[in-house]
Amino acid sequence: MKIVIIGGVAGGASAAARARRLSEEAEIIVLERGPHPSFANCGLPYYVGGEIASRDKLLVAPVAMLRQRHRLDVRVRSEVTQIDRDNQTVSVHDLDSGKTYIESYDKLIIATGASPFRPPIPGIESSRIMELRDLGDADRMHEAATARAKQAVIVGAGFIGIEVAENLVRRGMHVTIVELADQILPPWDREMAMPIEAHLRKHGVDIRLNESVQAFEETEHGLTVQLQSGETLSADFAVVSIGVRPESQLAADAGIKCGERGGIRTNAQMQTNDPNVYAVGDVCQVSCFVSKATVQIPLAGPANRQGRIAADHIFGRMSAYRGTQSSAVVGAFEMTAAMTGLSEKLLNRAALNYEKVYIHPSDHAGYYPGATQMTLKLLFDPQDGAILGAQCVGTNGVDKRIDVLAIAIQAGMTVYDLEEVELCYAPQYGHAKDPINMAGFVASGVLRGDQPIVHLDTLHPSTRDEPFLLDVRTEQEFAAGHIPGATNIPLETLRERTGELPVDKKIVAYCQVGQRGYMATRILIQRGYEAANLSGGYRLWSNSMIDRAD
Amino acid sequence: MKIVIIGGVAGGASAAARARRLSEEAEIIVLERGPHPSFANCGLPYYVGGEIASRDKLLVAPVAMLRQRHRLDVRVRSEVTQIDRDNQTVSVHDLDSGKTYIESYDKLIIATGASPFRPPIPGIESSRIMELRDLGDADRMHEAATARAKQAVIVGAGFIGIEVAENLVRRGMHVTIVELADQILPPWDREMAMPIEAHLRKHGVDIRLNESVQAFEETEHGLTVQLQSGETLSADFAVVSIGVRPESQLAADAGIKCGERGGIRTNAQMQTNDPNVYAVGDVCQVSCFVSKATVQIPLAGPANRQGRIAADHIFGRMSAYRGTQSSAVVGAFEMTAAMTGLSEKLLNRAALNYEKVYIHPSDHAGYYPGATQMTLKLLFDPQDGAILGAQCVGTNGVDKRIDVLAIAIQAGMTVYDLEEVELCYAPQYGHAKDPINMAGFVASGVLRGDQPIVHLDTLHPSTRDEPFLLDVRTEQEFAAGHIPGATNIPLETLRERTGELPVDKKIVAYCQVGQRGYMATRILIQRGYEAANLSGGYRLWSNSMIDRAD
Ligand SMILES: Cc1cc2nc3c(=O)[nH]c(=O)nc-3n(C[C@H](O)[C@H](O)[C@H](O)COP(=O)(O)OP(=O)(O)OC[C@H]3O[C@@H](n4cnc5c(N)ncnc54)[C@H](O)[C@@H]3O)c2cc1C
Ligand SMILES: Cc1cc2nc3c(=O)[nH]c(=O)nc-3n(C[C@H](O)[C@H](O)[C@H](O)COP(=O)(O)OP(=O)(O)OC[C@H]3O[C@@H](n4cnc5c(N)ncnc54)[C@H](O)[C@@H]3O)c2cc1C
Ligand SMILES: CC(C)(COP(=O)(O)OP(=O)(O)OC[C@H]1O[C@@H](n2cnc3c(N)ncnc32)[C@H](O)[C@@H]1OP(=O)(O)O)[C@@H](O)C(=O)NCCC(=O)NCCS
Ligand SMILES: CC(C)(COP(=O)(O)OP(=O)(O)OC[C@H]1O[C@@H](n2cnc3c(N)ncnc32)[C@H](O)[C@@H]1OP(=O)(O)O)[C@@H](O)C(=O)NCCC(=O)NCCS
Repeated sequence: MKIVIIGGVAGGASAAARARRLSEEAEIIVLERGPHPSFANCGLPYYVGGEIASRDKLLVAPVAMLRQRHRLDVRVRSEVTQIDRDNQTVSVHDLDSGKTYIESYDKLIIATGASPFRPPIPGIESSRIMELRDLGDADRMHEAATARAKQAVIVGAGFIGIEVAENLVRRGMHVTIVELADQILPPWDREMAMPIEAHLRKHGVDIRLNESVQAFEETEHGLTVQLQSGETLSADFAVVSIGVRPESQLAADAGIKCGERGGIRTNAQMQTNDPNVYAVGDVCQVSCFVSKATVQIPLAGPANRQGRIAADHIFGRMSAYRGTQSSAVVGAFEMTAAMTGLSEKLLNRAALNYEKVYIHPSDHAGYYPGATQMTLKLLFDPQDGAILGAQCVGTNGVDKRIDVLAIAIQAGMTVYDLEEVELCYAPQYGHAKDPINMAGFVASGVLRGDQPIVHLDTLHPSTRDEPFLLDVRTEQEFAAGHIPGATNIPLETLRERTGELPVDKKIVAYCQVGQRGYMATRILIQRGYEAANLSGGYRLWSNSMIDRAD
Repeated sequence: MKIVIIGGVAGGASAAARARRLSEEAEIIVLERGPHPSFANCGLPYYVGGEIASRDKLLVAPVAMLRQRHRLDVRVRSEVTQIDRDNQTVSVHDLDSGKTYIESYDKLIIATGASPFRPPIPGIESSRIMELRDLGDADRMHEAATARAKQAVIVGAGFIGIEVAENLVRRGMHVTIVELADQILPPWDREMAMPIEAHLRKHGVDIRLNESVQAFEETEHGLTVQLQSGETLSADFAVVSIGVRPESQLAADAGIKCGERGGIRTNAQMQTNDPNVYAVGDVCQVSCFVSKATVQIPLAGPANRQGRIAADHIFGRMSAYRGTQSSAVVGAFEMTAAMTGLSEKLLNRAALNYEKVYIHPSDHAGYYPGATQMTLKLLFDPQDGAILGAQCVGTNGVDKRIDVLAIAIQAGMTVYDLEEVELCYAPQYGHAKDPINMAGFVASGVLRGDQPIVHLDTLHPSTRDEPFLLDVRTEQEFAAGHIPGATNIPLETLRERTGELPVDKKIVAYCQVGQRGYMATRILIQRGYEAANLSGGYRLWSNSMIDRAD
């Protein structure tokens, strides 16, 4: 068996290593265009920022190790320029010698990844416009950031844009992010991205939303960046991080079927339309685990596992890829944002029914020092309660809750299951009723009709049917800030003061996080009022209202 | 509807609060013997140690809040002395006035918890023998630890014993733990408790295993503690933490059915044999979620949720308790140990079939600073791969992995599912192949026969069939320490040196953590050798060999 693998990093190297474990006899050739296989793509921003001090750390499995330990025929600076499926060969361009040769295969694995998208903006070809995909890119950015650069413009506020922003700030640079959408982290729901946005701003990052770059222009010592709005920014360099495109041209040219957005199509065993050709990682399209729609989501975990699955299938093991769930996490200074499954935005786009709840629990028991508040948004099926997605933002314990919910989604659990799950508890780690249970309580209450809620986005003042807005927090909390038009009756006195409420209007109660608002609705509904709780409370409202001019 | 609740902390207060939310009209009386309802039991050790500086923090829901917000009739210092089921009344002894009165109920909820077991040791009645259950206990211990005490003896090395030990050390005291078993954390598997034991010793805690107290004797300024071994310790005070017993006498006296170990029996709605009487929390026996056996596991999460379930059932909601899973976590200085499901010990006791694997991953990517190593033990069904239990010990990310596995157990997932789960990844949070995936890979490999393993406990030198022990680490690693009798052939050279191996013996390969050992077995098996990997590797071996005299 002779296996040729194109691309030697996350998906390719994993396929190769697994193939070797399954077969000592197979001939396994890894063809990698760059100078290093198996490097830590995900660590690149932190090398730029100095958090990862040594470049060597990024070489997860150096060539020598892959050769000795896994007996892999790793060939770096070797670009595959053509696939000939009829003859089962590839053309390899040796970038050092400049020569091209033919290599045959029994099975071919395409793991070419995805390359940063470079929009056709005037001036984009300048050497001062950078992107961050490989070690060469990281070296250039590292050099610029440590040598002399003072200002950078980052185009695109996705995960990589945010990570690069944080790391350039760490280097003492002034960073401006230019983002076309009206929020950072565009696939996220806006209100969940806002706390991270505010936090980045607090750390000095200048964020321009609803904005785009019209042109780059080199100056004597730098770059000017012309924005759509007319403004001009100056920078030592710019970083373009507006997404990636599957490197599938090679495959497409060989008649390997690709989807509309360029990703290679495969079955669950990662086989393409040619049974001798597999494709894994960012170069593939995948199905969304939740919606089953075809998507393209570049993530290291899926790439690694797909590589393993392809190797499995070659050697007769029927492991199957189950679809990508979009589990992802990003750090920004001391904050963390994580998600799994679908966002509300994507549920809407997929025209799927959903309900949502927000809670703002602390990461561990409030009575133990150091507790920090997080915001957790849970999206679920209004019919059967199946969990569809979750987003969480906060300081500590965020990745833990999203990982737990990621498993719950994998297992097909419902919000009723979350009520009952038993997580480990001691005061420095969580709660006797963990945020996960709490999200289950709230969501189940909503579905059972015990906890009617309304959402901020349906609260926008309308002339007809305007509800009576009831703030049940303390007088002090109310005085410190409230939603315009609200009347204050603290929860503790509500039972005595229901006479002050209109009987002909729906009452929307709210508190700081949602819990007292819920208790107020319990009191009111049982007294015959039509009442609902504003999910997420004042905190969510104020998050969404953050004045960006601040 | 008139509901009377006996006991006003975790289970009782939760039942009361939920009942109020479900019914504004119900009369809800909470009878609590102590001076405070709703206090943070789990925080007590940290108040003793000063980590929680203010005692007020421990009063999670003060009486005034329960009265005003939840309109509960909370009566503290009110001990129920009798239950009369025929007349549906309880006798209440008002500890302040000394008077006793009768209170009727429609539904009764018993949430009396469990009290620390005081063994019948001579001298146990001394006021210098403490336990830690309530605020009064904490006050006494706090006073002793801050005022003058220099030395303490703790009897029992369970969760509470360890937490108290840590906190007394924080107060500058010298602490000796006396434990009857041959390990700390007795329900745990020994090799998984050893790293915490070693860590406690490193922090100066003197741990005496296989040891018990024969007698306590008061001296002029303290206490002498006579040990079974003949030794005598002196101490300012002793803490007895050898487990708790359900406070079920009151119930038993009223004909409420209890199990063999004293816990009240209930159905899944927490109803006792009397449909008007519910029992929740530590006073109950429960079924083990995994083995379905009857167990008694005192945990705050289950107590809280059971309280909620009892209230639900009273008001016609059919939520059901699913059994207790033993998810628990304990911190000891900067280390964490957590578990969920059954330990190997308990699986053996239940005579259940199982297989186990050990891995030692880091909490996050090794190339990102601050990664720390953990040991994760996964127990699973050898037939279908169902996850039966997990234990994890390390510095960071331990509670996260156990919570994820707790959900996996709840969901009935198998080790094959763990291979495929998609957790969120960025280098400061985890791995592209998270420890959870990795445990899945290893366990699935074992079940598929791709990864034959042997365990330390079957490796003990036997005269017949002694395997050939092959250390595949580097020469330097081997020189620094190896398992007696092992031969060193580094993995990188193994393919060339198989000639040095005996052909008539089973070969047991090992490395530091298990991964290279596995690769070695892949090489050997495919060359016709009978080979297996020593699960957990040299690290587990050396953990188990820690010289306790150190
Ligand atoms: C800066 C950065 C940060 C990231 N952070 C995270 C994170 O925190 N979490 C996360 O989950 N994911 C993260 N990712 C994404 C993750 O790295 C990718 O999803 C993953 O590496 C995809 O693996 P792959 O094998 O498909 O492609 P890659 O790892 O990109 O490997 C593809 C390789 O193929 C080679 N190649 C391409 N064409 C050819 C050819 N014709 N011939 C030979 N070789 C070729 C390329 O040189 C490349 O090295 C990050 C990515 C970047 C760039
Ligand atoms: C020091 C300590 C640390 C702990 N740490 C953890 C931890 O980290 N994680 C975890 O999950 N669990 C922990 N626990 C266990 C957890 O606190 C219990 O499982 C939980 O509190 C049980 O709840 P409960 O309502 O059944 O009983 P309790 O919370 O004990 O409440 C029972 C109440 O009933 C009252 N009562 C008893 N009899 C009568 C009567 N006849 N009349 C009136 N009132 C009566 C008692 O005064 C008591 O206040 C810890 C416990 C202790 C003591
Ligand atoms: C380095 C690299 C080549 C390793 O690939 P790999 O050998 O398949 O993966 P790992 O090193 O994680 O090892 C996993 C294997 O070791 C086994 N293993 C792990 N720990 C073990 C233990 N303690 N005992 C026994 N086996 C163990 C697993 O079962 C698995 O083997 P299997 O697939 O045959 O079941 C590949 O992951 C890579 O190139 N990574 C860098 C690039 C990258 O991922 N970038 C994106 C993220 S920054
Ligand atoms: C304090 C105590 C009385 C609170 O009981 P409780 O009100 O049932 O519990 P919580 O405060 O956690 O609130 C949970 C309720 O608020 C709701 N809720 C929580 N956050 C919410 C939000 N953001 N929006 C709407 N509702 C919310 C939940 O749905 C749940 O209501 P439900 O049960 O009707 O569904 C009880 O937990 C207690 O006594 N604790 C201290 C003792 C103890 O547990 N000790 C052991 C651990 S140290």
